[in-house]
Amino acid sequence: MARRRTVDEHAARIAALVGPALARNETEFVPLSTAIGRVTSEPVVTVGPLPPFRNAQMDGYAAHYADLRRTPVVLPVDGVVAAAPTSPAVLEVGHLLKVMTGAPVPEGADCVVPVEQTVEEDGGVRILRPVDAGAFVREAGSDALPGTVVVPPATRLAPRHLAAAAAAGVAEVAVRRRPRVAVIATGAEVVPPGTPLTLGQVHDVNGITLAALAEEAGAEVVSVELTPDEPAAFEQTLQRAVAAADLVLTAGGVSKGDFEVVRQVLEPLGADVTEIAMQPGGPQGSASVRGTPVVCFPGNPVSAQVSFTVFLRPLLRAAVGLPPVAAVAMPLAEGVHSPRGKRQWLRGVVEDGSVHPVGGPGSHLVVAMAAADALIDVPADADFVGAGSVVSVLPL
Amino acid sequence: MARRRTVDEHAARIAALVGPALARNETEFVPLSTAIGRVTSEPVVTVGPLPPFRNAQMDGYAAHYADLRRTPVVLPVDGVVAAAPTSPAVLEVGHLLKVMTGAPVPEGADCVVPVEQTVEEDGGVRILRPVDAGAFVREAGSDALPGTVVVPPATRLAPRHLAAAAAAGVAEVAVRRRPRVAVIATGAEVVPPGTPLTLGQVHDVNGITLAALAEEAGAEVVSVELTPDEPAAFEQTLQRAVAAADLVLTAGGVSKGDFEVVRQVLEPLGADVTEIAMQPGGPQGSASVRGTPVVCFPGNPVSAQVSFTVFLRPLLRAAVGLPPVAAVAMPLAEGVHSPRGKRQWLRGVVEDGSVHPVGGPGSHLVVAMAAADALIDVPADADFVGAGSVVSVLPL
Repeated sequence: MARRRTVDEHAARIAALVGPALARNETEFVPLSTAIGRVTSEPVVTVGPLPPFRNAQMDGYAAHYADLRRTPVVLPVDGVVAAAPTSPAVLEVGHLLKVMTGAPVPEGADCVVPVEQTVEEDGGVRILRPVDAGAFVREAGSDALPGTVVVPPATRLAPRHLAAAAAAGVAEVAVRRRPRVAVIATGAEVVPPGTPLTLGQVHDVNGITLAALAEEAGAEVVSVELTPDEPAAFEQTLQRAVAAADLVLTAGGVSKGDFEVVRQVLEPLGADVTEIAMQPGGPQGSASVRGTPVVCFPGNPVSAQVSFTVFLRPLLRAAVGLPPVAAVAMPLAEGVHSPRGKRQWLRGVVEDGSVHPVGGPGSHLVVAMAAADALIDVPADADFVGAGSVVSVLPL
Repeated sequence: MARRRTVDEHAARIAALVGPALARNETEFVPLSTAIGRVTSEPVVTVGPLPPFRNAQMDGYAAHYADLRRTPVVLPVDGVVAAAPTSPAVLEVGHLLKVMTGAPVPEGADCVVPVEQTVEEDGGVRILRPVDAGAFVREAGSDALPGTVVVPPATRLAPRHLAAAAAAGVAEVAVRRRPRVAVIATGAEVVPPGTPLTLGQVHDVNGITLAALAEEAGAEVVSVELTPDEPAAFEQTLQRAVAAADLVLTAGGVSKGDFEVVRQVLEPLGADVTEIAMQPGGPQGSASVRGTPVVCFPGNPVSAQVSFTVFLRPLLRAAVGLPPVAAVAMPLAEGVHSPRGKRQWLRGVVEDGSVHPVGGPGSHLVVAMAAADALIDVPADADFVGAGSVVSVLPL
C-alpha cells in the first residue's frame, strides 16, 4: 500500500487551496447596530475632535475664574445655556450662566461651579466655595483629536469599540467580509432531523454541525443541503453551492464504497481524494470547481467534526481575523492505545490541568463527543501513550 | 449631605427589582439551526438507541465469523445491502453480503471484513486474512441507549451538542428564552450616528452601546430609541418599551439639571433616583412601570457602560445561564488617585499579569475606554493606590 499522506501534508494542501480563496475576501461596510463581533478591516478615525466642543462636566454655573477669588460671593445669573443652542452663548464678566452636564461652556467662561456648591438667592446665586481654574470644563479634543485612530484595524468589535465609533460620528464600519460557506451533506440513508426513521436510516448530523462549526469560526453559512447518493442530484446541488459560496464543504461519499457520490462527481473534475494517516477522518478530498474550493470530509459525524477542527477552523478564523485556537500541552489522565501509523484525535475532557479521554476511538460516538471539550493529539508513531505523559490538546 | 448609597447596596436593589422579572423567563423551543450559543433549559434525551441499528464500520463484506476460521477462503457474494433497505437482509451460512459503511449488518452476520482484506475472484470474494468476532460491527446503542441524556440542561450549545441532538432525532431544543431588552437614550443634544453636528450636539453612543452590551450578555434587544428631553415624548416611548420588553434601560436624564426627563417622568411613578458613591456613574435610578423593571443609567457614555457592567451584566448573564464574569486580583502597574468616599472604576489594560490604567477618570473618555479591556475597582475608602498594590479587576 502506498504511503498515506500525513495530517500536516493534507493540512498544507487544504491551506494552499482554501487560503487564497478566503484571502480575496474584500471589506464590507456594516452599520454599528450589526457590527458586534465583526473584525475591522480599516481603522475607525475621528474627523473632528472628541468631545466636539468645550462642555460642562457637571450641572452648575459657568463662571469666570477671576470672579471667584473671594467666596462666598453672589453673582447674577444671565440665563441657561441650552443643550444644543442655536448660537454660542457669551459670559459677561461678573456674571454666571447656568449649564447642564454636556452643554457648551459659554465663551469667556473658564470654569464650572457644581450646583451642589451654590445656593439660589434674590438677585443671583451664592457661590459657597471656589473651584480651580478650568474645573469641570471638558476641553474639545480632550478625549481624541481629529485624525485619531479610535478603533485599530483587525479589532474584534466589542461594545466599547462601537461606543468609540459612534462617538466619532461613524454610522458604518469597514469589516472583513465573512467567508460564505455552503454545506452539502450526502447519503441515501440520511434524513433531516426530526423525521421518523425506517430501517437503515439515520438523522442528518453533518449539515447542522458543519454549518454551526463554520459560523462559530466566523463564516456566513449561505446554504445547508442534503443530497442522496445520486450523482446528478449531488452535481446540481454542488453547482449551485460553488456559484453562491466562497467555500463548499461536503460530508460523506469519499471512501471506498460502491456509492461514493462525492468521489464519483468530483474525481472527473480533478479532485484529490485520498486516505490520510489519521483517525478518525481517514478519507478526505478536495477540489476546485469553477474557481471555488470544495473540501470533502468523511460522513461519520465525529470524523467530520474532527476534520473541520483540524483542517478548516484555523483557515476560517485567520480569514476573519480571529486568533488561532492554540493547542495546549498537558498530562493525560489515563493511558490510551492508538493504531500505529495513524495520528489519532481522541476526544477528551480537560479537568484540573489534565485531559481525560472520553468515549473511545469510534467515529460514530457522537454522544460521547458532545461530552468532550478537547481533542487529544496522539502521534502517528505511538501505539500506546501512558497516563501522565504530556500530550498536545486542541480545545474544541 | 445624606450618606450616599454604596455600589453594593444599589446592586442589591437592582437585583431585587430585575432578578425576579428575568427569572420568570420561560423556555422556548428553537430549531437546531439557530440554537448555537443558546442555553438548554431541559435535557436532550434519546428516544431510541444510537446508532439506531447494528451497522458496518467499514466498506466490506458482512460474514459469519465461523466461516473465516481458515483463510484465505473464497466465499460467494449474494449481493449488496442497500444503505436504507426496504426489508432486513439475512446472511446465509457460507456466504457474504457486501456492505457499505453505515449500512445495516444483515441478520446472522457477526463481523465485517474490510474491502482492503479481500480480492474479487470468479465465483466470489477471497478473504485474505481473518477478523475478530464482532469486528467492524457497531452495535445498536453502542453510543447511547434509549433514555440517555445527550445534552444536559444549562449547557451552552456548541456545535458538538447540536450534533448529538441531531443524532438523537431532535429537530428543536428547549432553551431559556432570552430576556427582551428595550433601550431608550435621551437628550436634546443627542443625534443619531452619522448625522452632521451643529453646536452643542453629540452623536448617540448609549443606544448602540447599551444594545450591544445587552446582546453580548445574552439578551434579545427589541428596540433602541432616542428621545429628546420632552417628558411627553419620553413617556410615550417608555410606555411602548415596557409593553414590549422584560427590562427597559434608559440613559441620561437622571442627574441634577433642569431638564432631567427620565427623572421628571419616572419620579411621579415611584422611581428611585439617587446618587451612588461611585465614579463614573454616580446618578442612578430604577422603577417598575406596569410590572416591567426600568433601570436608569446616567448619560455619559463611559458612565453608562460602567453602570451596565457593574449592575446589569451579572443579572442578564445569570438569567440566560451564562457563567458570571469573575473579577481577578492583580497588581496595579502604576499608582492611581481616587476621590475618597466613591468607589472608582478606572479603565485599564491587562498586560503581563498586571493592570495598566488608561485614559484617566473622566466619564467622557469614550475613546480611551475603547482601548481598555478591564475595569479597575478602586475601593471607596482609598484616595491613592500605589503601583504594585493588588487590586480587583473586572474584565470587560
